[in-house]
Amino acid sequence: MPTETDRLVRGFTVQLRHSGVSHVIICPGSRSAPLTLAFTRDPAFRCWLHLDERSAGYFALGLARQLGAPVALLCTSGTAAANFLPAVVEGSLSRQPLVVITADRPPELRENGAAQTIDQLRLYGSHVRWAAELPLADGSEALERHARATAARAVELALGPPAGPVHLNFPFREPLVGPRIPEPAIETMEPVTRAPQPPPEAALAQLARELPGRRGLIVCGPQSPALPARAIAALAAALAWPVLADPLSGLRVGQHDLSAVVESYDALVRDPEFTAGARPQVVLRFGAAPTSKPLNGWLAALPEARQYVVDVAGGWRDPDVTATAMLRADPAALCAALLPRLDGAARPDPAWGARWSAANQAARGALRAALDALDEPFEGRAPVELAAALPEGSTLVAGNSMAVRDVDSFLPALARDLRIEGTRGASGIDGVVSSAAGAAAARGGPVGLLIGDLSFFHDLNGLWPLRRYGLDLVVLLVHNNGGGIFNFLPQAEVAPDQFEPWFGTPHGLDFRGAVEMHGGRFEHLEGSGGWREPIARAVAAGGLTVLELRTERTRNVELHREVQRRVQEAVRGCAEARA
Amino acid sequence: MPTETDRLVRGFTVQLRHSGVSHVIICPGSRSAPLTLAFTRDPAFRCWLHLDERSAGYFALGLARQLGAPVALLCTSGTAAANFLPAVVEGSLSRQPLVVITADRPPELRENGAAQTIDQLRLYGSHVRWAAELPLADGSEALERHARATAARAVELALGPPAGPVHLNFPFREPLVGPRIPEPAIETMEPVTRAPQPPPEAALAQLARELPGRRGLIVCGPQSPALPARAIAALAAALAWPVLADPLSGLRVGQHDLSAVVESYDALVRDPEFTAGARPQVVLRFGAAPTSKPLNGWLAALPEARQYVVDVAGGWRDPDVTATAMLRADPAALCAALLPRLDGAARPDPAWGARWSAANQAARGALRAALDALDEPFEGRAPVELAAALPEGSTLVAGNSMAVRDVDSFLPALARDLRIEGTRGASGIDGVVSSAAGAAAARGGPVGLLIGDLSFFHDLNGLWPLRRYGLDLVVLLVHNNGGGIFNFLPQAEVAPDQFEPWFGTPHGLDFRGAVEMHGGRFEHLEGSGGWREPIARAVAAGGLTVLELRTERTRNVELHREVQRRVQEAVRGCAEARA
Repeated sequence: MPTETDRLVRGFTVQLRHSGVSHVIICPGSRSAPLTLAFTRDPAFRCWLHLDERSAGYFALGLARQLGAPVALLCTSGTAAANFLPAVVEGSLSRQPLVVITADRPPELRENGAAQTIDQLRLYGSHVRWAAELPLADGSEALERHARATAARAVELALGPPAGPVHLNFPFREPLVGPRIPEPAIETMEPVTRAPQPPPEAALAQLARELPGRRGLIVCGPQSPALPARAIAALAAALAWPVLADPLSGLRVGQHDLSAVVESYDALVRDPEFTAGARPQVVLRFGAAPTSKPLNGWLAALPEARQYVVDVAGGWRDPDVTATAMLRADPAALCAALLPRLDGAARPDPAWGARWSAANQAARGALRAALDALDEPFEGRAPVELAAALPEGSTLVAGNSMAVRDVDSFLPALARDLRIEGTRGASGIDGVVSSAAGAAAARGGPVGLLIGDLSFFHDLNGLWPLRRYGLDLVVLLVHNNGGGIFNFLPQAEVAPDQFEPWFGTPHGLDFRGAVEMHGGRFEHLEGSGGWREPIARAVAAGGLTVLELRTERTRNVELHREVQRRVQEAVRGCAEARA
Repeated sequence: MPTETDRLVRGFTVQLRHSGVSHVIICPGSRSAPLTLAFTRDPAFRCWLHLDERSAGYFALGLARQLGAPVALLCTSGTAAANFLPAVVEGSLSRQPLVVITADRPPELRENGAAQTIDQLRLYGSHVRWAAELPLADGSEALERHARATAARAVELALGPPAGPVHLNFPFREPLVGPRIPEPAIETMEPVTRAPQPPPEAALAQLARELPGRRGLIVCGPQSPALPARAIAALAAALAWPVLADPLSGLRVGQHDLSAVVESYDALVRDPEFTAGARPQVVLRFGAAPTSKPLNGWLAALPEARQYVVDVAGGWRDPDVTATAMLRADPAALCAALLPRLDGAARPDPAWGARWSAANQAARGALRAALDALDEPFEGRAPVELAAALPEGSTLVAGNSMAVRDVDSFLPALARDLRIEGTRGASGIDGVVSSAAGAAAARGGPVGLLIGDLSFFHDLNGLWPLRRYGLDLVVLLVHNNGGGIFNFLPQAEVAPDQFEPWFGTPHGLDFRGAVEMHGGRFEHLEGSGGWREPIARAVAAGGLTVLELRTERTRNVELHREVQRRVQEAVRGCAEARA
């Protein structure tokens, strides 16, 4: 590698480091050698090898999510770069800062049939915050400075708000490798000073005037990093409002004040007798749209309520078109500015909060009793047992499709030091194993993954880094031989001949062999419960353990409906919850 | 599903069928239900389920390549669609007709935080021949006719030339499923009448004037469907020119006249004594740039030669910028038009062809002797044994990286009914298992896959359809625990500390468990040869067999160099090959 390429690349990576990137996921290749060498020769970077670019992208997302810091992702030219697209899309929608770096052929080898050469310019289209092509080094100081500025700028734009992926495309001409050179004495830029913008005064004044004394709800949807739980809990206390807390919001579980938290909304809003007396005048929403379809549907059917959607920038997170106003504000900054203005503010009739609280208590108790009464394995029990078995400081990663819905429906509010994470940007079933592996790579505490069989299959390659890097992950694999969520959909009844082969899609896979290939232990969870002991054992053992719970899809629908029925009965029987 | 959606979709799928699509690969999902039902309820379609969209895309490519016909590929909304990108890129560059259909949310659920909703418009950027969004059905006949015309047009554009993927994005509003409706009585359009354009008269006259009597070479690079072997062989005979035949060109192996075929060019062009008397005055190139780097390098160092690159349309397949002229012509049409004009044409000095032929014979014999003399396993022997073991009518799929290079270097010209295929558009190591599975799905004869361990790992999920559909595939897995091709690159010497962890990338995977998970047999190939017997047994047994050959990367480099040295010695010792 000629010295000018090396100098340009080293300046770039050193600036990336100064701007706050310390983890790099590297996929092998030849064209990317100048960058691979610059990163791996610099002991300040923690470099992670991954053999599958698709999984690598999600691994980077999981790591960035857990660290709350930007992560770099590198691959060689060609379809390698195309394999990053799913994670780039997920990162854009779930707002994770990712610096995606692709190596490319020089201009003279493009679009003329050279091997491993594809059109990589703007490869990720609208799914990145920024895309730029670096120049070929020419030995000039101007270009070297430009490459360093590009590194600083890439991190700045990846951090948003909203955070997201950026794409840098690096052309390299052969020869691609040279001997190690000393770190160039370069001037690095300082990281950009960042602080959330304070909310507009007019909005604060409006909220301080409109919220107090009204029957209100705070709705917290998925957000990662988590919403400011203490601040939102304090806001709820000042307003005497319930907090409907999605498990991925950071409000359902944590060490903040949980007294206002309502987690049984999925059951409550289905009960017309309850909702008749529970219609809010004002809704203040933080985070993305909640996971619960019944909750979203109910919120969309409250035309009389003023609904505020709080978000930092341009997310327009309102799929059901219910917002009265969009508040462009950082949630923490909004709470901090609003709270002092609510000192001694009026409160709604105490019956308002009491009704929600009583109904929630009734539902929670009934749910616990219903789960305990089952004498067969039930998927809804899995998140409860997994959360109970994970020690303080752990992260529970919820897969998409049924896993996250079961966490939403069955995981009670818990005063525990647990993080609940998911990939709820695009909510795909892909890349979930890798997201959990990336979370494990941050080494911030044990990681437990709740996942279904289709999702597990889709990202089996995501298991690879676990053995390579001695990472610890406990997987609770709910195996119902197909797409369990589809059994809840009309397809199952309207098109019975097509249902099993094309929607249910039983695949007959026994994952033991694949898990063992990755050095993992594979065990079955037996019986109707008591799973927290084997889960805790697996956590204590370290490494990878996959605990498989076998269930049956049609029975699962019946059990969900049965448990739901019992919870609704309990809510109906709760006098305090009545209007 | 309201009847208007059903009518629009059915009209679309029926037209697709009339335009020549009979195979559809379907990935499960809910939003895509209207299309899934329309395809699977129509017995005229052969529908294939795949659980992993990335593999499904390559499976579709393998099927389209083997059938020589357009194939449809369907997925639901969200990152599912993003997973198709690698195969779309490969399909664009290797020119396979693919109708990619993605389901999407309706306009009111886009870009506002709805789950499984991403920006799918122009998702594949410059990598499709055409991208269009279908309208939501409104019951009007105009839109239904538009949807049918879009189907016809999509197939027309996917067929090129050059062939490639097209993308149709279908928004659907809930409810998504309805009962089966009778096939609508619609007017379908006839498939577009297609015939290659005849080459321009001026170009024909120029070639008829310039080629005869000159020392020329025909160079055939990768092309799929294969180049017109008989016509090119006839052209070579008329001109008395050698044909340098890449294994993926369709000229190296087949039942055409092989007398002019030279396959040992990789060894020959490294020998300055041979090349001193073997410099052509004219080169006529068909197909993509050859796999052999030495051959491309040598061709690029012939400034005195007139080099014609023949291609149907806009491919500009000339990475080394050696072309004197680009001939926009269909290879078969060009041969057909040119041949009559070469009747009784002048020929070069017979020593020209004799020299190439003698050198090639010497190299071929030396290669066979060198392989036979080895008393240890050698990767270069694998393609020879695999081809020998496959019965007539088979397809040999060559993986990228070392596999295709070993086929190129070691597979002799064979007068046999064998197809050699690869994914040489972007030449990625991804999707290779699925390409072979797709070839097997065409049921046009046995399929053997030669593949390395990294590539096999990357697309393990590609094994899934084999058991599901009872497909037959024999995999010769060359397992050298990492990226064998990198050991041939300067990285190995220039950056020894970084080499093994970041380029060699040993992963320690034993694939038996994963293969058995997919219902395959897993066996080891032992010794230095005699592998065709276990390969033939595996072919006869049907289903999936993976035959693993364990090798060692550094020893592999030595053996390649040793065999190469012996071949070059033989060429140097061949008096007829001397200038």
